[in-house]
Order: sequence, then structure tokens, then C-alpha cells
Amino acid sequence: MLESTPRRILGIDPGLQCTGYAVLESTPRGATLCEAGVIRTTGKDLALRLATLHDSIVEILDEWQPETIAVEQLYSHYDHPRTAILMGHARGIFFLLGGRRKLPVLSYPSTHIKRLVTGSGRASKVQMQHAIMRELGLAAPPEPHDVADAVAVALCHLSALKRSHLT
Amino acid sequence: MLESTPRRILGIDPGLQCTGYAVLESTPRGATLCEAGVIRTTGKDLALRLATLHDSIVEILDEWQPETIAVEQLYSHYDHPRTAILMGHARGIFFLLGGRRKLPVLSYPSTHIKRLVTGSGRASKVQMQHAIMRELGLAAPPEPHDVADAVAVALCHLSALKRSHLT
Repeated sequence: MLESTPRRILGIDPGLQCTGYAVLESTPRGATLCEAGVIRTTGKDLALRLATLHDSIVEILDEWQPETIAVEQLYSHYDHPRTAILMGHARGIFFLLGGRRKLPVLSYPSTHIKRLVTGSGRASKVQMQHAIMRELGLAAPPEPHDVADAVAVALCHLSALKRSHLT
Repeated sequence: MLESTPRRILGIDPGLQCTGYAVLESTPRGATLCEAGVIRTTGKDLALRLATLHDSIVEILDEWQPETIAVEQLYSHYDHPRTAILMGHARGIFFLLGGRRKLPVLSYPSTHIKRLVTGSGRASKVQMQHAIMRELGLAAPPEPHDVADAVAVALCHLSALKRSHLT
């Protein structure tokens, strides 16, 4: 089946200090970038930081009306359990927003995303940034790397969609 | 300083399948239980489960208007990182609600809570249930144990408040 209407995906690379996000649109000629950036939260109050993150994502959802949210799976971060647990707090916000808006929230393993974008499941952050630059025809690699990671997970979802249309 | 108005605390024992909650009111004669129970979520869709959890806590906050939320610290759960990360998702919702409503969300280490309630930082679930039954003058131990744990963390916060008033 060919896609008739553009699909918009919000890709998110969750972090408490710095969350990367990217809205991609899938067109017959490939993926185009609508908007990407990072949401930074500071301060010692976890509750206020999560509220900032929530409100920022609400703004992005309102503006771009993506049909799906894609995030990285967390289970590759067992080496740093404290960080993974804190990231879980941030990730809970994205799932909550998806649930409340009836948007599917899909997660992809980090190695899967890296392999799709660079050919290697163990690609470095710099390799990911350069691959995303080439893929989207950007003049420079996305900075910080959280933006590239958010684009990558959105691309991963678009690729999964394409495969599901071919089969 | 003596307390003039009763203080209401919402204690939460976070879990994805079963979250215990307890609203306690601190009066000059001690803590009394306003309401306690569990919120259960089912199904494979994490987003919908978190949305259910969110909406249930919103109802409790609206009804009882607690001034503080108290939850257990998560870092004692390193042995089961997958569970701890998933609990982090649920926990993020409570912090978010606190942040959006300008309610402080305080967390206490599990050992600290157990020691306060039973005298031992390594108390079993059954010991906790019996200690809570005695403390609140209940006819039977709270069931399931998640309810007792939610009461315990709220008591822990009231005890911390009392200490801060004495010093």
C-alpha cells in the first residue's frame, strides 16, 4: 500500500537534564524534518523538572499533531541503574501523554536503532550524528547528540512502518 | 510550634500493576486514616496503564487536597533493574502531578520507613502490615501489603514533620 497522507512521528530521546526530540514527516520522497531540538530542565526539584518536560512535549504535540510517539527502549541501560531509573521517570511522562491522547507510543531497542541508521548496532554518538546528517541532507551534524538520537528513533519507526506496508 | 490545622499527606507505594495509596491526616491526637486502597492497572499498553494511574491519583488529590505527597525512594531496588525502571515510569507520574499542582513530593528510603514503623530497617511485609494495624488502631492488617506500605511512607513523612517542629 502506498502512503497517501504524510505521517508525522515524534521521536524522543529521554533524559532528565536534556531530552532530544524530533518531529519527522514521511512523504513519498522520504522523511523530512519538521522540527527538532532539546528540552533542558534544571534544578533539584524532580517534580518541577518533570512538569517542565511535560509542558514542553504538550506544546510540540499541539503544534505538530504527530500520529505516533517513538522512544528508545530503556533496558540497555542496566549498567547505570540510577540513571535508567531516573530516565524511567521522564519516560513515564511521554507514555502518559500518549495514553491520554490515544497516540501509540512505541519503543525500539537502542541496537536496532543504531543498526538501522549506521549499519552497526554499536555505532558511536558521532557516527549517529553523521548518519542522520546524511539521511536528512543537513548541512551539519545535529547538535547535541540527543537531537540525532531522537531523529534516529523516529526514522526507525518510519522504517518499521514501511516494512509493515510491504508485507 | 503546635499544629493548628490538620495536615493531610498522600502516601504512595508505586507499582505498575498495583499502586498502594493512603491519605492520612495529622491531628493533635495522632494520625488518622482518611482513605486508603490500591489502584490496579492491567493490559499490555504501558501508555494506557499510566493514564489510568494518573487519572486515579488526580481523583484522590481532588477529593482530599493533601498538602504533600510522600513516596518511597527507588534506589533500593537495584537488584531488579527492570522492575525498578518500570516503577520509575509510574513514579514519574506522581512527581509530575506534584509539580503541576505545586505540591512538594518527598521520598524516603525504604529502610528508613521500615525502621520508623517497626523498629527494624529489614522488616518483612507482614511485620509492616501488623505495625500499621497497631499504629492506626485498625481491626485487621491492611491488605494487600501495598496499602500498608503507602500508610507507612505517609507516617514517615508526618514523623519527619514532627521532628522539624521540635527543633
